[in-house]
This record gives sequence, C-alpha cells and structure tokens, in this order.
Amino acid sequence: MAAHTMSEAFPDIQKIQYEGPKSKNPLSFKHYNADEVIAGKKMRDHFRFGVAYWHAMRNTLADPFGAGTAQRPWDDGTNSVANAQRRVWACFEFMDKLGVDYYCFHDRDVAPEGETLAESNANLDAVADELEKAQKATGKKLLWGTACLFAHPRYNQGAATSPNASVYAYAAAQVKKAIEVTHRLGGEGYTFWGGREGYASLWNTDMKRELDHLAKFLHMAVAYKKEIGFKGPFYIEPKPREPSTHQYDSDAAACLNFLREHGLMEHFKLNLETNHATLAGHTMWHEMEVAVAAGALGSVDANTGDELIGWDTDQFPTDIYMTTQMMLVMLKSGGFTTGGLNFDAKVRRESFEPVDLFHAHIGGMDAFARGLKIAAAIIEDGRLDAFKKARYSTFDQGIGAKIEAGTASFAELEAYTLENGEPMIGSGRQEMLENLVNDFI
Amino acid sequence: MAAHTMSEAFPDIQKIQYEGPKSKNPLSFKHYNADEVIAGKKMRDHFRFGVAYWHAMRNTLADPFGAGTAQRPWDDGTNSVANAQRRVWACFEFMDKLGVDYYCFHDRDVAPEGETLAESNANLDAVADELEKAQKATGKKLLWGTACLFAHPRYNQGAATSPNASVYAYAAAQVKKAIEVTHRLGGEGYTFWGGREGYASLWNTDMKRELDHLAKFLHMAVAYKKEIGFKGPFYIEPKPREPSTHQYDSDAAACLNFLREHGLMEHFKLNLETNHATLAGHTMWHEMEVAVAAGALGSVDANTGDELIGWDTDQFPTDIYMTTQMMLVMLKSGGFTTGGLNFDAKVRRESFEPVDLFHAHIGGMDAFARGLKIAAAIIEDGRLDAFKKARYSTFDQGIGAKIEAGTASFAELEAYTLENGEPMIGSGRQEMLENLVNDFI
Amino acid sequence: MAAHTMSEAFPDIQKIQYEGPKSKNPLSFKHYNADEVIAGKKMRDHFRFGVAYWHAMRNTLADPFGAGTAQRPWDDGTNSVANAQRRVWACFEFMDKLGVDYYCFHDRDVAPEGETLAESNANLDAVADELEKAQKATGKKLLWGTACLFAHPRYNQGAATSPNASVYAYAAAQVKKAIEVTHRLGGEGYTFWGGREGYASLWNTDMKRELDHLAKFLHMAVAYKKEIGFKGPFYIEPKPREPSTHQYDSDAAACLNFLREHGLMEHFKLNLETNHATLAGHTMWHEMEVAVAAGALGSVDANTGDELIGWDTDQFPTDIYMTTQMMLVMLKSGGFTTGGLNFDAKVRRESFEPVDLFHAHIGGMDAFARGLKIAAAIIEDGRLDAFKKARYSTFDQGIGAKIEAGTASFAELEAYTLENGEPMIGSGRQEMLENLVNDFI
Amino acid sequence: MAAHTMSEAFPDIQKIQYEGPKSKNPLSFKHYNADEVIAGKKMRDHFRFGVAYWHAMRNTLADPFGAGTAQRPWDDGTNSVANAQRRVWACFEFMDKLGVDYYCFHDRDVAPEGETLAESNANLDAVADELEKAQKATGKKLLWGTACLFAHPRYNQGAATSPNASVYAYAAAQVKKAIEVTHRLGGEGYTFWGGREGYASLWNTDMKRELDHLAKFLHMAVAYKKEIGFKGPFYIEPKPREPSTHQYDSDAAACLNFLREHGLMEHFKLNLETNHATLAGHTMWHEMEVAVAAGALGSVDANTGDELIGWDTDQFPTDIYMTTQMMLVMLKSGGFTTGGLNFDAKVRRESFEPVDLFHAHIGGMDAFARGLKIAAAIIEDGRLDAFKKARYSTFDQGIGAKIEAGTASFAELEAYTLENGEPMIGSGRQEMLENLVNDFI
Repeated sequence: MAAHTMSEAFPDIQKIQYEGPKSKNPLSFKHYNADEVIAGKKMRDHFRFGVAYWHAMRNTLADPFGAGTAQRPWDDGTNSVANAQRRVWACFEFMDKLGVDYYCFHDRDVAPEGETLAESNANLDAVADELEKAQKATGKKLLWGTACLFAHPRYNQGAATSPNASVYAYAAAQVKKAIEVTHRLGGEGYTFWGGREGYASLWNTDMKRELDHLAKFLHMAVAYKKEIGFKGPFYIEPKPREPSTHQYDSDAAACLNFLREHGLMEHFKLNLETNHATLAGHTMWHEMEVAVAAGALGSVDANTGDELIGWDTDQFPTDIYMTTQMMLVMLKSGGFTTGGLNFDAKVRRESFEPVDLFHAHIGGMDAFARGLKIAAAIIEDGRLDAFKKARYSTFDQGIGAKIEAGTASFAELEAYTLENGEPMIGSGRQEMLENLVNDFI
Repeated sequence: MAAHTMSEAFPDIQKIQYEGPKSKNPLSFKHYNADEVIAGKKMRDHFRFGVAYWHAMRNTLADPFGAGTAQRPWDDGTNSVANAQRRVWACFEFMDKLGVDYYCFHDRDVAPEGETLAESNANLDAVADELEKAQKATGKKLLWGTACLFAHPRYNQGAATSPNASVYAYAAAQVKKAIEVTHRLGGEGYTFWGGREGYASLWNTDMKRELDHLAKFLHMAVAYKKEIGFKGPFYIEPKPREPSTHQYDSDAAACLNFLREHGLMEHFKLNLETNHATLAGHTMWHEMEVAVAAGALGSVDANTGDELIGWDTDQFPTDIYMTTQMMLVMLKSGGFTTGGLNFDAKVRRESFEPVDLFHAHIGGMDAFARGLKIAAAIIEDGRLDAFKKARYSTFDQGIGAKIEAGTASFAELEAYTLENGEPMIGSGRQEMLENLVNDFI
Repeated sequence: MAAHTMSEAFPDIQKIQYEGPKSKNPLSFKHYNADEVIAGKKMRDHFRFGVAYWHAMRNTLADPFGAGTAQRPWDDGTNSVANAQRRVWACFEFMDKLGVDYYCFHDRDVAPEGETLAESNANLDAVADELEKAQKATGKKLLWGTACLFAHPRYNQGAATSPNASVYAYAAAQVKKAIEVTHRLGGEGYTFWGGREGYASLWNTDMKRELDHLAKFLHMAVAYKKEIGFKGPFYIEPKPREPSTHQYDSDAAACLNFLREHGLMEHFKLNLETNHATLAGHTMWHEMEVAVAAGALGSVDANTGDELIGWDTDQFPTDIYMTTQMMLVMLKSGGFTTGGLNFDAKVRRESFEPVDLFHAHIGGMDAFARGLKIAAAIIEDGRLDAFKKARYSTFDQGIGAKIEAGTASFAELEAYTLENGEPMIGSGRQEMLENLVNDFI
Repeated sequence: MAAHTMSEAFPDIQKIQYEGPKSKNPLSFKHYNADEVIAGKKMRDHFRFGVAYWHAMRNTLADPFGAGTAQRPWDDGTNSVANAQRRVWACFEFMDKLGVDYYCFHDRDVAPEGETLAESNANLDAVADELEKAQKATGKKLLWGTACLFAHPRYNQGAATSPNASVYAYAAAQVKKAIEVTHRLGGEGYTFWGGREGYASLWNTDMKRELDHLAKFLHMAVAYKKEIGFKGPFYIEPKPREPSTHQYDSDAAACLNFLREHGLMEHFKLNLETNHATLAGHTMWHEMEVAVAAGALGSVDANTGDELIGWDTDQFPTDIYMTTQMMLVMLKSGGFTTGGLNFDAKVRRESFEPVDLFHAHIGGMDAFARGLKIAAAIIEDGRLDAFKKARYSTFDQGIGAKIEAGTASFAELEAYTLENGEPMIGSGRQEMLENLVNDFI
C-alpha cells in the first residue's frame, strides 16, 4: 500500500472543520464546535466523544451474506503486529481531524491474537507501546478498554459462563491482561460485554450455575482491579440477544438485578447502547432513566438501530429527537464523569470508502450537538419541567407527603378515600408536550 | 333469561369426563385424569388448575375493533349484585364439571363497582358471602385474589404510580379490601398486576418518584397483611407493555430488581404469564428458570400468545412442547406450593358459544397433562440430564471446583491457561437434544 | 349536558389561530398557514386535511384493559339520532376552528345502528340530512365515506369474507347504502378497510374461497358505483393484522396483488396508513413508493405508531422526519387529487379533555407543514436529486440504456462482462445523505 | 488432512439407518423410512428431500460476532478446485447415508470464484464434471441450482437492481452460466433469491427504476432458458429483509404482485422458506396457502426460525405442528412436482462437529415424516374437513351460490337482507379444532 497514513489515504481530510449551519461543505461540522459553551460547559466536556476502534479501524463491513467491502488504504491487509502498530497512527490522525478526544478498544481489535496466550499478550503489549506513544503525541485518551470474549471459537458456548472450566480460565486470563493494558494506558473505565454469556438452548443449559460462575468472575475482576490499583469503574453492557439466543445481561434491569443479587452494585455501572435498548423493547431514554435512578449510568455506546429490523444494525445516530432525549437525561443527571459517548457504530456495507467514515462521525457529532442545544433550550424555557412538577404536586403536601414520608397506612388511605370520594385528575397532555418539544427541534 | 345455571344453559355439560386418548367425544378428557399418579403425585396436585373468573365468566369478547360476542345465558345482562351472585354458582358448576379445584378473581370481576367505595365494598361483601357458600358446598378453593386497578378511568395514569395522591389512596383502599376478602375466603395467595403502573410518555413522567411510591405501596400491603394475619404469599406479575407504553414490572428480572432494591424479596414471589413472557422477548421457560433461580416462582398464569402478534392474545395453551418445558421446570423445582396453573386465557371472539369455554379449558388441561407425562418420561429416561451434567463436569473438580468454591484468582487462572494452552471443548449438541425431546412428544 | 356546542364545551377554542413559530400559545399554529403558498400551491391544497369522525367525535378512549375516559360535553351520552345530529355541528365547529377542510366517516360513527337494517338506514339518512346542511353552511367537504364492517358481532368471522352468505349479504347491503350516502354528500372517494377480512385460524378457513368472495364483492361495488353515477375512486386500505390474526389486505403489495389477480386495478387505489405500514414491517415511505410506482396512491390515513409496540396505537404524527419523507413523495408524485391527509389518529387515553383534541390536531397539522417546507427546500436545493441521478447514470447510455430499452440479452451481457472485467462501483453514501437531510430539518 | 472422505472423517456414519420409534440410537431414523407408503405414495416421493450444499458443506458457522467453528475434516482448508472436487464426494456420501435423493447449490458454493469471470466459469465447469460423475455413480439428482449474487462486494448495492449497469451485466453473465450448469446436470428447477435486490436506504434509491431493471433481467432469463431448452421452472424466493433493509421479494404476495405486473406469472413459481415467512410476519402455512391459491407453489426451503429473534436463524425444523401443517397443504394440493423439501438449514455455531450435521438432518427428516403421517391421519379421519365444509355451506346453495356464480348484485343482496333480517352464525370453534389436531400429534 502506498498510503500509510490517513491523510495520504484521504487527502480531503483537510476540509474537516467547523463552518456553521449554513455551510454546504459536507465534510464540515455545522453544529459541533468543541470549545463552545452550552449550559455552562464546553461541548467536548458534555460529550467526551469516543471512536470505537473495532468499527472505525477494523470493521471490514462483511455481513452474514457477504464478504467485507471496506477500503482502508492504510491497512496492508496482513494480521501483523507491524500493521497493527501503523494502524494506531491512522486512528489517532482520524480522531485528531474529527476533534474526538477519546477512543475505546477490545484487546483483539488493536492487536492480533497469537497462537498462544503468551504470544497474544506480547502482541498486545507491542501495540500498547504504540498507543502510549500516540496518546502522548496527541493528548488523546482512552475512554475504556475491554476484552473480546466472543469472537474466538473457544468462546462459542460462553466465556465466564462457558460450561468448560478451561475456557473460563482463558477468559479470566484475557480480562486480566486487558485490565492491565487499560490501566497502563490511563483508561478511564473498563467494560464487560457478554455477547456469548447466555445460551443458545435451554435444553443443554444450567442457567443458575452459569450465573454463579459469572458472578465469581466479576468478583475476581474487582479483586484484581484493586490489586493493581486501577481506579476506573467497571461497566457492564446490556443486550438481549445476538449473538446468543438469550444473553444474561439482557437489559438495564436484568443487569442491575444480577449486580444486586451478587453484591456487585458498588463496583459496576452500566454502559448503555441505543441499539441494544431497542432490541430489548425499550427506548434508549427508558434505559437511561433506569440507570440514572439506580445511580448506575456509566457510559454510552452511541449509535442507532432500525426499529423495523430485528438485529443490531449499529447505525450512526442522526435522529435529533433521540439525541435531544439523551442529552436531556445527561444535563439533568449531571453529565458524564468517567464515561462518554463512544460511537459504537459502523458505516453501511455500501459506504465502503474512507470518506464515509468521516461523513458518519461528523453526522453523529453534529446530531448530538443539536440535541444538546435543544435540551438546554428546553430546560431554560422551563415549561416542560413546570408541567411535570405540577403533575405530581399532590404528593408535595397533605396525604401525598405522608405517603412519600412512608408514614401512611392502608387504613389511613382507606379512611381518606371514604371521606374524599372520587379523585379529580387532570389530563396527561402528552400531545401538548410533544408539540412543545417540536417547537425546539 | 330462562337459563340461570350452567347446565340449563349448556345441557351437553353432562358429556364431560375422562375417556382416554381414543375417545372421539370432543367434550371428553383424553389425558387429564385428576387422581392418576404421575411422578409420585396426583395430576390435580401437580397442576392445581384455576379458572380465571374474569375471562371465563366476565369476558364479553369485545376487542378494540368490535363489540362483545359472548353468549352467556346464565347472565341476565345487568350489572346487579343479584346477577353477580347467581353467576357465582354458574362458575362453580363450571369448575365442578371440569374438575378444576381453584379459581382466581379481581374484586371488580366478581362484584359490580358501586357509585362510591363504600358501595363497592358492600357489593364485594355480598358476593363474597355467596362465594363462601359455594366454596363450602363444592370444596373448591381460591388460588388467589386481586384488585382491578386498571379498568376504571381514575386509574388511567396509574394506581400506585399515579401522579395523583388521591388516586393512590383509592388504590390502597381497594387493595386493602381485596386482601381482606381474599383472606376471608381462604385464598392461598394474592396477586399484584400493574397494568397501568408504568408510563404512556416519558415527557410527563418522573420514573424514580413513581417507583418510590410503588415500593411504599407494597410495603404498606405487607404491613397490612401481617396486621390481619393473612399468611399467603404476595405475587407480582411481569408484563412489558399493554395497556401502558411501558410497564415497570416488565419481565421477571425487572420485577426482581425492583424487589431487591426496595427490600421486598422476602414478601413477594412472581406470578408468571406465558404471553407476557413472549411479549417481553423471552420464552416462558426462560422466565420460569429466572424465577426458580431466585427462589421466586410463585404461580403461573397459563395461556399462550401468538408470537407473530404484538399484543396479549391470551389464547388457551395447546402446544405440547411448551407444556412439556413448563412441567419439566415444575418437576425439577419441586412443584407448586401455594400457587398453581391459572387459566388466564380467553376463547377467541369467534368462539362465542358456551360450549367453546369447555373446549378451551379441556384442551388446556389435556395439553398440560401430556406435558407432565412427557416431562416425567424425559426425567425417568435420564439421558437429557446426563448430557447436561457431563457438559459442566470440568467444574466438578480441579480448577473448575476452585472457581466454584470462590478460591480462584485471575492470576491463578492466567497461570493455568499459560500452562494448559488452548481448551478442548465439545459440541453443544442442540440438534441431538431437540431430536431426543421429540422422541418423547 | 349544558354544553351542546364545541365552543360552549371548550371556550378556549377562540385562541386557535396561526401565530408563527415564536408563539408560546400552545393552541396556536406555528407552521400551518392554510393559504401560504409552498412549491406553487397553497398549504391547504397540498394536504387536504381531514378529520376522522370516528376518532375525533366517537372514540371513548377505552382500551382492552379499561373503560372510556373521554370527556365530550357536547354529547348527551345517548345513542339517539338527535344526539348524533347535534354532534354533527360540534364536529363542523371543530373543523372550522382548526381550518380543516374535509372529514371522513363510517356509517355507524355518524349514525346509530338500529334494530334492523331498515332502521339503521333511516338513522343514517337522518344524520346525512344534517351533514348536508352542515356542509352547506360551512363549505366543508367529505373526503371519503366508508361502512363499518367489523364492529357488530355479526361480522366476527368477516363480512365480504364471512363463511356465512347472509352475513355477506348484510355487508353488501350496508356498503350499498354507505356508497349512496357518500355520493349524496359529494364524497370525493370511498374506502374499504377489511379489518375482519382475513382469518383467526387457518384450521377453519378456506382462504381461496374467501378471497374469491371478496373479489366478487368488490366487483359488485364497482357495478353499483357505475349504476348510481358515483365518480370518486374506491380505496382499499392495507393492514396486516388486528383485529384479525391475518388480514388479507396485509400491505400495499398484497392489496395490489389481489387487485391485479381479480381485474380490479383500474377501479381501486390505496388508502395508506402510517401505523399499518410499520405493523407490516415497512416504513410509510416504502408503502407510498410502492403505491406511487403502481399508479395507485389514493389517500393517506395520517397517524403514527410506536415501533416498539405491536399494535395500532394510532398516535398523532409529530415526527418531522416522517412528515418530510411523506411530503417529498407527494411533491414528486404530483400530490393528492381526490385523496388527502385524514387524521386517523386518537388522543391518548390519558388525554381525555376536549383541549387535548385540539393540541393533537394542531400538532399533526404543524408537523406536516414543517415536513412540506423541508421537502420543498430539499427539492429546491437539488443536491439529493443530483446524487440519485448520478448514481444510476450508467443506465442512461451504452449497455445500461440497452438494458432499459429491453434490447439486451444474457449472451450480450456476458460478452460485455468478459470484455470489461470487474465493475467499478461507488459508495452508496447513506451517511452523507442522512447528514444532508438533517441540514434541512 | 488425513480424512478425505465423509466416512473417514466420521466412522459412526455406519450407524445411520431406520430403526423405528423405539430405538435409542441417536443416529437412527425413528420415523422416516424412504420406501414406506403413506397416502398412496412413498415417503421419498412426498418429500423429495434436498441437501443444501452451502449450509451442509460450506458453512463455517461464523456469525457477525465470531469466527467459524465448524470441523470439516474432509476439507483441506484451501479454496482450490481440487478441494472443491473432493468435497463433492463427501457431499454425495453424506446424502447417500442419509437417504436424501437431491441437492441444491449456488455456483460459488460448489466452485471457487476466480480472478475473472472466465476463470470462475472454468472452475465451475471443473466441479460440474465431478458433480456429474457423482450423480451418475449414486443416482442422486439436482433439485435446483442458483447463482450467488449477494456475497461478492461488487453486489453490495444489488445485482439485477444494482445502480450500476456493469454490475447488472456481471450478474446476468453469472446467472447465464448457472442456468447452463443446472441444465447440464439435469437440474429440475432454478431459483432466484434476491438478497441484495432491495435497498439499504430510500434516500439514494429509485425503487421503480430498479424494479423495472429486475423485470427485464428475469425476462432475459426466460428467453435464455428457452434458447437452451431448459425445461425446469424458475423459482423466486421471498424474504423481507436481511441482508438488505428491504428486499423487493418481501413475501409471497409481494413476489406475485411483481410477477403479475411484469407478465412473468407463467414462468415463475415460488420457493418458500419457513424462516423467511415468519420474518415477514406470516406463518409458513399462510405463505403456502397464498402460493397454492395462485398456482405458484414450486419448492420449499425447509428450516425454522426462532420467532423471538429478528433474523434468519435457519435452524433445522423439528416442530411437529409445523411439519403437520406443511404436509397437510402438500397432501391437499397434490404434492411436489419439480420441487421438494430442501434443508436450507444450518447446525448451531456450538454444534461444530461432523456428527451434528447428521443429528440435524435426521431430526428434520423424522420431523417431516411424523408431520406427513399425522396429516394423512387427519385427512383420513375427515372431521376437520367436514367441519370446514359445513362452515361454508351457505355458499353451496341459494343466495350464496348466486354470489359464487357472480350473478348477484348489491341491490339483490340488500333486498335479501331486508327480508331475512339478522343472520344466524355459528362459532368458529378454533379451540375445538386445535384440540382435535392435538389428538393426532
């Protein structure tokens, strides 16, 4: 390959910059302006955008019915460590031109799996050296790391929930190393996604035994994190199915239930993904509210699904309604601390040219920038919040306040009802509120 | 109406009896034989079948696009207490002819709602008198009672999660009375189904505040139960949506998460419904395993859905595969104690004649009888269990046993892996096991 | 009831008017301005908005789990003809205040069903008298009429596909009358929606025989239309299921297939509904393109569904992306002739006050006004169309033009390929185009 | 590889034989007995089972989240023609041991794609030589052939609906060759599956233009078939989505609509696939009835999906209810002529050993054998048919017969209704019929 760098491969990269809403340059940002202050904070700090190494750098755009289509001139097509190291610099140049401050990786995305664990570890170390150099050279940071426990055939029946103890041990060894590398690179968190932690069939599965194994695995991870002094949070990532028929971490509530049962709540937060939420039959907004209510919103894998399609399409998020809802939750809950918005999204298989990677990320960043501005405007306007506050106002005093204080009883509430008769209630005004929101879109 | 009793309305009722698999009498049982012993227990004790008063006696078979079609000659068409009392005897005759030992009811199914709470309570008492007489006369028992907190317009925005404190109080008063009546009638449990405990829109909803209200409501119910000496368990019933856009008790895991968060696990078990499981994207088998693993399987609402249809069709269960899976779980987990198999199922709107009620219940009971016999045969055969045991055998000794004992560490598992290399794993054999099961169908 | 008119029932009706985007009056239009010219035509003529009599005037907001909640003070709660006649004027005042020019009705929505067909027909005539007066008084017009062949118990197994010939005859009689009344009132079209034309179970169904009956029914309707001189088109309305397990007119393609098979294409166009499209697994945009390509786009039932919910929610449309796509199709295909945008949508059950009807319709009209403006701007901008044209440009000349002309053969194409080798193709640029569209939102 | 043949790779292959229902040998057939006569025809002739070369021989069991796991010792892991030729004999030994008489292939499954079309064609010829020898040696036959127009990157935006004329030409050349090879091998049919004939996004798509191109493509195929004297039918295979967001051949009705519009009905029948049916929201039974009613049921891709999963799982069919329904349709419609039951199904990724291929096919064949026996018994019993006949009996005489004869009019039906009043209708008896069917399971 002649083009070893991103800008050799894609000279138009120089056109990327903030030009404002009226620009007709498709490679410009129209809304995202990193240092612009919205609601008291710079945009970059609201979002803490991350590039997902696996999608941006490693996805060949194969699908179950066809081979990869992606043109990635900076790759030499080998699975060598040297190629992996060179790719690091392409990724950092990509982040740099986009103005993205963070990246996320799986161990096997950044470095090739070797013949043995020892070899894989050595490969990972060699690439980590390069990542460290690139971080220093650019100031970019690692949002979180993770281990890929689903791609290799050994994990076909699970990793921490494999029926085979040696597979379990292999997974533990892999996670140990991935946490070490994440720690070394200053990663701000570490994520567990259990794509094969579940089952293909209940006919051959002991669910309770597998879940007990998983809990022990996570406790070992917590112990190891303490041992090496890694301070970042652990994230667990819900998804209901695919690749497994059922995955144990099926949605936010299932994850929280598991964490509570096994005494893990203080060590884990959730890494929520939009497309996983809808596959579980929930809106992303719902999953975020569930996580916030439990004090467990850690980070977000930003993408979008096609609700008419039953699998994870991992499309780039462009719907302003969705980004508005997400940024409303973030603004109200105080925003990200260690986590951020990681673009766990891929360009379509038909969008195989390098420039498409830029269109996709620019579009996603602009969509979130608009969502942030709209959410801030809705909060400043105040009408939506005022409506919601009034809606619950009967709980601010009298019998409602007693209920909230936990001092009411069924007998007292019965007496109240016998005396007061049929309640007067007001309309939920869903349509009026939807119109109000549209006034800000 | 000339026909005040079930047998006046439907003289063919006399044909109902066990006649064995070869009978061509469509009103006979071919498999369910109440006192036949399977796996050491009478069929009736395995199943503890219940008739759902609301569907069997009160469902008019209206749907969102059309009026009721049901012909119920024992009803005079009024909403009077006298009619409600007469209907009690039709229901008990129905149970008697079917050989069903239990029934379940909502307060507003058995007795008409009055103009005031006091009047409603009096109506309920008057019908409870009649239910008590009928129970004594027939030996039939109440599996569980419940309060209808979703049909009246006052509950349109929720009951225990209503934004209005007076509605909340009304719901509390209604539940108080329903628990009292359940207790009086010797009910073996009490169920909460939160059809409107959720939201239509997040734009007007404070999810956390609503969930805190719900927890307080359930704690008051626990306190009241103790106060009056009701010993039966409380059941909470998962369903993801319908009528609400989202219901808080969306699946077994969501219910358990809520119960754990709010310190309610010891007081509640789950009442699982087949059609609710599939609407949540799970099999009933999955939901049962989740509940059993948490020690929380209380009772079952037996029906089936159409997986190509996105709402609760509440059809009668006739699929032998499903009843086999359900009875396998019950046989392995020790079976029902206070709970049972309540037919929360309705005949199709096109099946509007009285005889259809019999066909439907007979079919459901026979389907479960077959499922029980098949499940017992699979267990006795032993091959399925043996395969599953062997599949996890690496956890019975060596490094696997250390993992299960909680004495392994990541460092030890890494060392094990570096020494042992790539694991050898065996096929999951899903197809072989599916064939094995088919040999018993 | 004291309030017999809409404005007595809802005095705030006087606040309804166009006030532009900056208005904070929630009862004002911010975008819909009936006589404003967009893309060479007045907004009112682009949309030809219709009020759906059944939802706006007759929906009690009951659902399968609860009673109606709607407060409609202009109704006296009886099923009398007098009440039905008075309701006509409430409806026309409603349309007038909203600036909606059209309405649509089912026979049984506007007038009560009687004990006999003769009585039902007389009731319908009596209300039609009133509708005629109201039309003359206000200038409002009938977009289309239809017969309700799904609500009465007689139709529980279908109407034109009922297994019973007398039911079929009844349906024919009812449609005959509905066409007559539609004709008398100057209706611009007539719609067939086959909610029960399908099956609950294939075990009892002869699909082919039923479809042949349906074809004969529609041919009789065509004959009758000609006989009385009704010139408006017939519309057939796709929906996949609900209330039936399967409905024959399941999507646009299924309808067209049926019409082609039975020689009915020239007499029927499609009345597409957004929520029906998504229930069938298609976008509304897809269904509209299918209809336009077949020259069969007749009219639109404008609403929206919740794609995470498996039934017809019939919500008011507020998503600007969707209205933009719909108006793009309309602008490019020449717009409505006899059809229009009928709001086949209902307020939520929690939105039970009269004002909610206004919020809902205003929101829907404004959402379409924005969609129209955006679509017009995208067309004027030209970049989207230019991209699409370029994408197919290889078919404008050379071998591509021969293919389009129908003069190419497999042998020639093979020779071309052997000579020319691997094709060069360009990216589909989906992400760039999605960003481009967002620039106009 | 030491094991070049199937029986070297899998010595237990010798255990495969018919042993009847009581056998505990998991590699024996319990129900399928090729020459046993059911309903007047040998089982082998009812089913005409086919092995799908792509799944049985070429599927590596990769999925979007992980690498292939399949152990196929007869493969040497290269993409050479020699390996492809040797694989032919493994496949035929596989068919032989199973007692399957037919196979189906895509061009690129049996032979490797070369650098150029000429090279690919030569590869295909070389493998076809071997297939021809193997057919002669074993008496096995080709059920149908097809061309893979979806895996290569050139087809990422479609083949016959590609926006690029050169891609279209390439596809034509490939189909030309595949038809030739199918013809040479005595194939009994030829199939078109349009996995990329659809769109990823409507923003860049001209649907009508693409569909016109597709129609021209199929007309050229018809012309070429005539030219070379290929007599077998063409099949078109419906699937709604995956890999495309929308595929034009989305279900049976969409295919028929397209064929009718473009004058192709006489040349095409449908190849229906179970999992595709359910992804389209239909039962397989429904799709088969639609095809039969149109005289267009050609062949069947036998597999099953998981209805809770939103993509094509292509599992082996084991549900006796489904096979019963399918064989009922086949018995009543006269059975397959040129088509058959092709196992378009794959073992699970966890079932990676050679023996799993046998378990899977044996299970599927036994499930269909049971379905056939049950369907024949239901027909012989006669009660189901009698019920259905009686249900429509009002159309056998009187006004019903006039309706069927096409001699009735709306006026006559209105007069009939005014005279006869409210129809008397009977229950649809769905539950009774479901019980009746269970008596035969």
